[in-house]
Amino acid sequence: MNLDFAKSDGLVTAVIQDHASGRVLMVGYMNEEAFGLTVKTGFATFYSRSRKKLWLKGESSGHRLVVKEISTDCDLDAVLVKVDAQGPGVCHEGYQSCFFRRLKDGAWQVVDQRTYDPSAVYGGKA
Amino acid sequence: MNLDFAKSDGLVTAVIQDHASGRVLMVGYMNEEAFGLTVKTGFATFYSRSRKKLWLKGESSGHRLVVKEISTDCDLDAVLVKVDAQGPGVCHEGYQSCFFRRLKDGAWQVVDQRTYDPSAVYGGKA
Repeated sequence: MNLDFAKSDGLVTAVIQDHASGRVLMVGYMNEEAFGLTVKTGFATFYSRSRKKLWLKGESSGHRLVVKEISTDCDLDAVLVKVDAQGPGVCHEGYQSCFFRRLKDGAWQVVDQRTYDPSAVYGGKA
Repeated sequence: MNLDFAKSDGLVTAVIQDHASGRVLMVGYMNEEAFGLTVKTGFATFYSRSRKKLWLKGESSGHRLVVKEISTDCDLDAVLVKVDAQGPGVCHEGYQSCFFRRLKDGAWQVVDQRTYDPSAVYGGKA
Protein backbone atom coordinates (compact mmCIF):
# COMPACT_ATOMS: atom_id res chain seq x y z
CA MET A 1 0.00 0.00 0.00
CA ASN A 2 1.86 3.01 -1.29
CA LEU A 3 1.23 6.72 -0.92
CA ASP A 4 -0.66 8.30 -3.80
CA PHE A 5 1.90 10.69 -5.26
CA ALA A 6 0.09 10.85 -8.61
CA LYS A 7 -2.93 12.75 -7.30
CA SER A 8 -1.09 16.06 -6.76
CA ASP A 9 1.66 16.26 -9.35
CA GLY A 10 4.00 13.90 -7.53
CA LEU A 11 3.49 15.34 -4.06
CA VAL A 12 1.75 14.42 -0.85
CA THR A 13 0.82 16.99 1.77
CA ALA A 14 2.83 16.67 4.98
CA VAL A 15 1.41 18.04 8.23
CA ILE A 16 4.08 18.50 10.87
CA GLN A 17 2.88 18.21 14.46
CA ASP A 18 4.86 18.56 17.66
CA HIS A 19 5.01 15.11 19.22
CA ALA A 20 4.85 16.39 22.80
CA SER A 21 2.50 19.39 22.68
CA GLY A 22 0.32 18.41 19.73
CA ARG A 23 0.79 21.84 18.16
CA VAL A 24 0.70 21.87 14.36
CA LEU A 25 3.99 23.46 13.37
CA MET A 26 3.91 23.65 9.59
CA VAL A 27 2.59 22.16 6.37
CA GLY A 28 4.97 21.07 3.64
CA TYR A 29 4.97 18.81 0.62
CA MET A 30 6.97 15.66 -0.08
CA ASN A 31 7.68 13.89 -3.33
CA GLU A 32 8.55 10.21 -3.23
CA GLU A 33 12.25 10.92 -2.76
CA ALA A 34 11.65 13.39 0.09
CA PHE A 35 9.33 10.94 1.82
CA GLY A 36 11.87 8.15 1.42
CA LEU A 37 14.62 10.33 2.88
CA THR A 38 12.36 11.33 5.77
CA VAL A 39 11.82 7.68 6.64
CA LYS A 40 15.44 6.64 6.04
CA THR A 41 17.22 9.52 7.80
CA GLY A 42 14.67 10.25 10.53
CA PHE A 43 14.72 13.97 9.67
CA ALA A 44 11.76 15.58 7.90
CA THR A 45 12.66 16.36 4.30
CA PHE A 46 10.39 18.21 1.91
CA TYR A 47 10.12 19.12 -1.72
CA SER A 48 10.13 22.88 -2.08
CA ARG A 49 7.53 23.83 -4.67
CA SER A 50 9.00 27.32 -5.06
CA ARG A 51 12.66 26.26 -5.33
CA LYS A 52 11.77 22.99 -7.10
CA LYS A 53 14.26 20.96 -5.10
CA LEU A 54 14.57 18.72 -2.07
CA TRP A 55 14.77 20.57 1.20
CA LEU A 56 16.05 19.09 4.43
CA LYS A 57 14.24 21.18 7.01
CA GLY A 58 16.93 22.81 9.15
CA GLU A 59 19.70 22.65 6.55
CA SER A 60 20.23 26.43 6.97
CA SER A 61 18.95 27.04 10.49
CA GLY A 62 19.96 23.82 12.19
CA HIS A 63 16.35 23.52 13.34
CA ARG A 64 15.79 19.97 12.20
CA LEU A 65 12.64 17.96 12.75
CA VAL A 66 13.31 14.57 14.32
CA VAL A 67 10.65 12.13 13.17
CA LYS A 68 8.83 10.30 15.95
CA GLU A 69 5.84 8.84 14.10
CA ILE A 70 4.31 8.92 10.61
CA SER A 71 0.66 8.32 9.77
CA THR A 72 -1.24 8.52 6.51
CA ASP A 73 -4.85 9.28 5.72
CA CYS A 74 -7.63 7.24 4.16
CA ASP A 75 -6.85 8.18 0.57
CA LEU A 76 -3.07 7.99 1.04
CA ASP A 77 -2.37 11.49 -0.28
CA ALA A 78 -1.34 13.16 2.99
CA VAL A 79 0.99 12.25 5.83
CA LEU A 80 0.98 13.37 9.44
CA VAL A 81 4.51 13.52 10.82
CA LYS A 82 4.90 13.85 14.57
CA VAL A 83 8.27 15.35 15.38
CA ASP A 84 10.61 16.54 18.04
CA ALA A 85 11.51 19.99 16.73
CA GLN A 86 15.12 20.94 17.38
CA GLY A 87 15.78 24.60 18.11
CA PRO A 88 13.50 27.46 19.15
CA GLY A 89 11.15 27.48 16.20
CA VAL A 90 10.10 25.93 12.92
CA CYS A 91 9.02 29.06 11.07
CA HIS A 92 11.62 31.00 9.11
CA GLU A 93 9.96 34.19 10.34
CA GLY A 94 11.11 33.45 13.89
CA TYR A 95 8.09 31.73 15.39
CA GLN A 96 7.67 28.33 17.05
CA SER A 97 4.95 27.44 14.52
CA CYS A 98 4.24 28.77 11.04
CA PHE A 99 0.62 29.14 12.17
CA PHE A 100 1.20 32.32 14.16
CA ARG A 101 -1.70 34.33 12.68
CA ARG A 102 -5.27 33.81 13.76
CA LEU A 103 -8.48 35.04 12.17
CA LYS A 104 -10.12 37.63 14.42
CA ASP A 105 -13.02 39.77 13.29
CA GLY A 106 -12.24 39.07 9.65
CA ALA A 107 -8.53 39.91 9.80
CA TRP A 108 -5.37 37.87 10.37
CA GLN A 109 -3.69 38.89 13.60
CA VAL A 110 -0.33 37.75 14.92
CA VAL A 111 -1.07 35.93 18.17
CA ASP A 112 2.36 34.52 19.03
CA GLN A 113 5.64 35.99 20.22
CA ARG A 114 8.81 35.36 18.21
CA THR A 115 11.00 32.69 19.80
CA TYR A 116 14.16 33.67 17.93
CA ASP A 117 15.58 36.35 15.68
CA PRO A 118 15.40 35.05 12.11
CA SER A 119 18.04 37.50 10.83
CA ALA A 120 20.56 36.00 13.26
CA VAL A 121 19.78 32.49 12.04
CA TYR A 122 19.29 33.03 8.33
CA GLY A 123 21.80 35.85 7.90
CA GLY A 124 19.25 38.51 7.11
CA LYS A 125 17.80 36.56 4.18
CA ALA A 126 14.59 35.62 5.95
CA MET B 1 -3.78 40.31 4.06
CA ASN B 2 -5.51 37.65 2.01
CA LEU B 3 -4.86 33.94 1.66
CA ASP B 4 -2.76 32.96 -1.33
CA PHE B 5 -5.18 30.95 -3.42
CA ALA B 6 -3.14 31.46 -6.59
CA LYS B 7 -0.20 29.31 -5.48
CA SER B 8 -2.05 25.98 -5.76
CA ASP B 9 -4.61 26.34 -8.54
CA GLY B 10 -7.09 28.29 -6.46
CA LEU B 11 -6.83 26.17 -3.33
CA VAL B 12 -5.32 26.39 0.12
CA THR B 13 -4.57 23.33 2.21
CA ALA B 14 -6.80 23.01 5.28
CA VAL B 15 -5.62 20.99 8.27
CA ILE B 16 -8.46 20.02 10.58
CA GLN B 17 -7.52 19.56 14.21
CA ASP B 18 -9.73 18.56 17.14
CA HIS B 19 -10.03 21.63 19.36
CA ALA B 20 -10.10 19.64 22.59
CA SER B 21 -7.73 16.72 22.03
CA GLY B 22 -5.33 18.25 19.51
CA ARG B 23 -5.68 15.24 17.24
CA VAL B 24 -5.31 15.97 13.54
CA LEU B 25 -8.53 14.65 12.00
CA MET B 26 -8.16 15.24 8.27
CA VAL B 27 -6.62 17.35 5.54
CA GLY B 28 -8.80 18.99 2.92
CA TYR B 29 -8.62 21.82 0.44
CA MET B 30 -10.58 25.06 0.24
CA ASN B 31 -11.07 27.47 -2.61
CA GLU B 32 -11.96 31.06 -1.84
CA GLU B 33 -15.69 30.29 -1.78
CA ALA B 34 -15.27 27.29 0.54
CA PHE B 35 -13.10 29.32 2.90
CA GLY B 36 -15.63 32.15 2.90
CA LEU B 37 -18.46 29.74 3.68
CA THR B 38 -16.41 28.14 6.46
CA VAL B 39 -15.97 31.54 8.09
CA LYS B 40 -19.54 32.70 7.46
CA THR B 41 -21.40 29.55 8.47
CA GLY B 42 -19.06 28.25 11.16
CA PHE B 43 -19.01 24.79 9.56
CA ALA B 44 -15.92 23.55 7.72
CA THR B 45 -16.57 23.53 3.98
CA PHE B 46 -14.11 22.19 1.42
CA TYR B 47 -13.59 22.04 -2.30
CA SER B 48 -13.52 18.43 -3.41
CA ARG B 49 -10.73 18.00 -5.96
CA SER B 50 -12.14 14.68 -7.16
CA ARG B 51 -15.78 15.79 -7.45
CA LYS B 52 -14.82 19.37 -8.46
CA LYS B 53 -17.45 20.95 -6.26
CA LEU B 54 -17.99 22.53 -2.87
CA TRP B 55 -18.42 20.06 -0.08
CA LEU B 56 -19.94 20.86 3.30
CA LYS B 57 -18.29 18.28 5.51
CA GLY B 58 -21.10 16.25 7.07
CA GLU B 59 -23.68 16.96 4.37
CA SER B 60 -24.24 13.19 3.96
CA SER B 61 -23.20 11.85 7.37
CA GLY B 62 -24.35 14.67 9.62
CA HIS B 63 -20.83 14.68 11.07
CA ARG B 64 -20.23 18.41 10.73
CA LEU B 65 -17.14 20.23 11.89
CA VAL B 66 -17.95 23.23 14.06
CA VAL B 67 -15.23 25.84 13.65
CA LYS B 68 -13.63 27.04 16.87
CA GLU B 69 -10.52 28.83 15.57
CA ILE B 70 -8.75 29.45 12.26
CA SER B 71 -5.05 30.18 11.83
CA THR B 72 -2.92 30.63 8.73
CA ASP B 73 0.74 30.04 8.07
CA CYS B 74 3.62 32.32 7.16
CA ASP B 75 3.10 32.16 3.41
CA LEU B 76 -0.70 32.26 3.64
CA ASP B 77 -1.28 29.10 1.58
CA ALA B 78 -2.52 26.82 4.36
CA VAL B 79 -5.06 27.14 7.15
CA LEU B 80 -5.31 25.30 10.44
CA VAL B 81 -8.92 24.91 11.51
CA LYS B 82 -9.59 23.82 15.06
CA VAL B 83 -12.99 22.21 15.31
CA ASP B 84 -15.51 20.53 17.50
CA ALA B 85 -16.28 17.41 15.44
CA GLN B 86 -19.91 16.39 15.62
CA GLY B 87 -20.60 12.65 15.53
CA PRO B 88 -18.40 9.63 16.13
CA GLY B 89 -15.83 10.19 13.42
CA VAL B 90 -14.55 12.38 10.62
CA CYS B 91 -13.33 9.68 8.25
CA HIS B 92 -15.77 8.19 5.74
CA GLU B 93 -14.17 4.81 6.42
CA GLY B 94 -15.58 4.81 9.96
CA TYR B 95 -12.69 6.17 11.98
CA GLN B 96 -12.41 9.15 14.33
CA SER B 97 -9.53 10.53 12.24
CA CYS B 98 -8.56 9.94 8.63
CA PHE B 99 -5.04 9.31 9.91
CA PHE B 100 -5.72 5.80 11.16
CA ARG B 101 -2.72 4.10 9.52
CA ARG B 102 0.76 4.36 10.93
CA LEU B 103 4.08 3.47 9.37
CA LYS B 104 5.57 0.44 11.14
CA ASP B 105 8.57 -1.42 9.80
CA GLY B 106 8.06 0.01 6.34
CA ALA B 107 4.35 -0.80 6.04
CA TRP B 108 1.12 1.09 6.80
CA GLN B 109 -0.76 -0.56 9.62
CA VAL B 110 -4.23 0.31 10.89
CA VAL B 111 -3.74 1.42 14.50
CA ASP B 112 -7.23 2.64 15.37
CA GLN B 113 -10.58 0.99 15.98
CA ARG B 114 -13.58 2.04 13.94
CA THR B 115 -15.91 4.35 15.88
CA TYR B 116 -18.92 3.81 13.62
CA ASP B 117 -20.16 1.66 10.79
CA PRO B 118 -19.72 3.65 7.58
CA SER B 119 -22.24 1.53 5.63
CA ALA B 120 -24.94 2.52 8.13
CA VAL B 121 -24.11 6.21 7.72
CA TYR B 122 -23.35 6.42 4.02
CA GLY B 123 -25.84 3.80 2.86
CA GLY B 124 -23.23 1.35 1.67
CA LYS B 125 -21.61 3.86 -0.66
CA ALA B 126 -18.48 4.37 1.44
